[in-house]
Amino acid sequence: MVKKPCALFIFNLPARQYFFNRVRGVNVNLKVYLKKKQELVNKFLREYLSSKEANVFCPKYLYKAMNYSLMAGGKRLRPILVIASYEASGGTSRKILPMAASIELIHTYSLIHDDLPAMDNDDFRRNKPTCHRVFGEAVAILAGDALLTDAFDIIAKSRAKPEVLVNILRELTRACGSEGMVGGQTADIIFEDKKIKERDLRYIHTHKTGALIRASVRIGAIMAGAPLSIINPLTEYGEKVGLAFQIVDDILDVVGTREELGKLIGADTTKGKNTYPSVIGLEKSRRKAEFLIEDSLKAIERIDKKAEPLREIAEYILRRRN
Amino acid sequence: MVKKPCALFIFNLPARQYFFNRVRGVNVNLKVYLKKKQELVNKFLREYLSSKEANVFCPKYLYKAMNYSLMAGGKRLRPILVIASYEASGGTSRKILPMAASIELIHTYSLIHDDLPAMDNDDFRRNKPTCHRVFGEAVAILAGDALLTDAFDIIAKSRAKPEVLVNILRELTRACGSEGMVGGQTADIIFEDKKIKERDLRYIHTHKTGALIRASVRIGAIMAGAPLSIINPLTEYGEKVGLAFQIVDDILDVVGTREELGKLIGADTTKGKNTYPSVIGLEKSRRKAEFLIEDSLKAIERIDKKAEPLREIAEYILRRRN
Repeated sequence: MVKKPCALFIFNLPARQYFFNRVRGVNVNLKVYLKKKQELVNKFLREYLSSKEANVFCPKYLYKAMNYSLMAGGKRLRPILVIASYEASGGTSRKILPMAASIELIHTYSLIHDDLPAMDNDDFRRNKPTCHRVFGEAVAILAGDALLTDAFDIIAKSRAKPEVLVNILRELTRACGSEGMVGGQTADIIFEDKKIKERDLRYIHTHKTGALIRASVRIGAIMAGAPLSIINPLTEYGEKVGLAFQIVDDILDVVGTREELGKLIGADTTKGKNTYPSVIGLEKSRRKAEFLIEDSLKAIERIDKKAEPLREIAEYILRRRN
Repeated sequence: MVKKPCALFIFNLPARQYFFNRVRGVNVNLKVYLKKKQELVNKFLREYLSSKEANVFCPKYLYKAMNYSLMAGGKRLRPILVIASYEASGGTSRKILPMAASIELIHTYSLIHDDLPAMDNDDFRRNKPTCHRVFGEAVAILAGDALLTDAFDIIAKSRAKPEVLVNILRELTRACGSEGMVGGQTADIIFEDKKIKERDLRYIHTHKTGALIRASVRIGAIMAGAPLSIINPLTEYGEKVGLAFQIVDDILDVVGTREELGKLIGADTTKGKNTYPSVIGLEKSRRKAEFLIEDSLKAIERIDKKAEPLREIAEYILRRRN
């Protein structure tokens, strides 16, 4: 059976125009939603950073490197997914913020380490010099290590019930460790300049990027005390959206602009990275991303209007330009 | 008041001879004790590594790097301190092993990252080429990241009560993060080739090395459900022993042999590292280490014979040659 391309695919339509053209039963203005949640996350992160700055035992130079990368203008997509999934599962408290913020710390650590000369050797990220370009390699490695450790610290010190906290921790360690994000990044590095099959590329993408996105969605649901009938569809949503996110990333590396992306375009090809466009072609990659987003929407179609932001985010992931 | 040098200081006496010459009320044969605990820890670590090897999602090359560094012949001092402190606090179960092993994972991660060319640039450790020399820098960085994450994973999956587990987690994240080990290592790197005061050196040593040793001792006590009247003296013991350990390390870099230490001698001086011998001189450093060990023994003198291994370990730290 040939799958019908998703009607939502608007790769060539500017995001804002699409958004305001759209008519829906529930009025969720994604831009406003994202901004509001970004501010909540940023506020938490600023408080976290202030506590580091004030701590005499945290060297100033280390603090500066952590602050630089953490506040470099990230979209906060992963923490927002934590919050959106939490709210979709009926959660209403601000207790979700430490969990959301800790995911951003982990994401930032992974970017700092991935950018290192020994890894992807990237000089720019989000239109700014990468952490090691500003603070040196040693401090960049250490800032990454500190952010990873502090992510677990924030969770450990949060006010969630210990049983819940332990479950969240298990989600996160599984998603980030040797069988998750680090495993995917290792395979990504090892397979550079080697021809691989789509199956292997799928492993790389679902682990290097997908695992943390999947965990973000699951952690939101777990914090809300959601039953499996909610956690399972949300997990499927997270898996589809996570893979789609990385495929769109691959596509943007081919069709995006440096201004939009804040980093060099075509870097994947130069580095001999395996990407969806390089393995299955640009058009098939676009269709793949569309199908995944369609599937992600199907997975959560039975969840009520509280899941509306998750639906909007899925569509945003497809049409994003950075 | 001039402090009396510790009678136990036997820097110039071979360890074994000293040990068998020693007469004590309680017959604890440290060598046998260390070997027995080492075997327990190694068994747990082997099982952990087997589970990684069997996991299709953990890339083989990553597993090999983790395995290489974790099984490179470490003394397992930190996990043994966890166990010894647990037993000194009345603990008897094997539930302590995951906690002990996770400390060794963290210690190993810190060594892998510290050895990197961008950091201390060490080619040898424990008479073997360092991780990045065998597996390349990228995989070494990732193996370190994976071990750190897995350390928290092992704790999260252990069978300790959630409340206890959360407390242990807090101990560990605080000891390892930007205000602990990573902070100390950052200062160590930043102050290279700069003249510093003993106060700053003390910060470096108590954080880069001391924090994890202190946490090891505290975690053992917390796991045993010890009251503050036991935790506090044990904490003091951990602090003193932790600093003494690093001072002895500094001394051995001057007076040790490559065969004993398994790495190049005089490396600290070559790298412009600040060490106790370079800042306060060799003799004063020796005396400082003696006083610290003496103080560590005093701190736990009211704890009964169950603390005997801790006392033996303190003395061993002073007389060790590697």
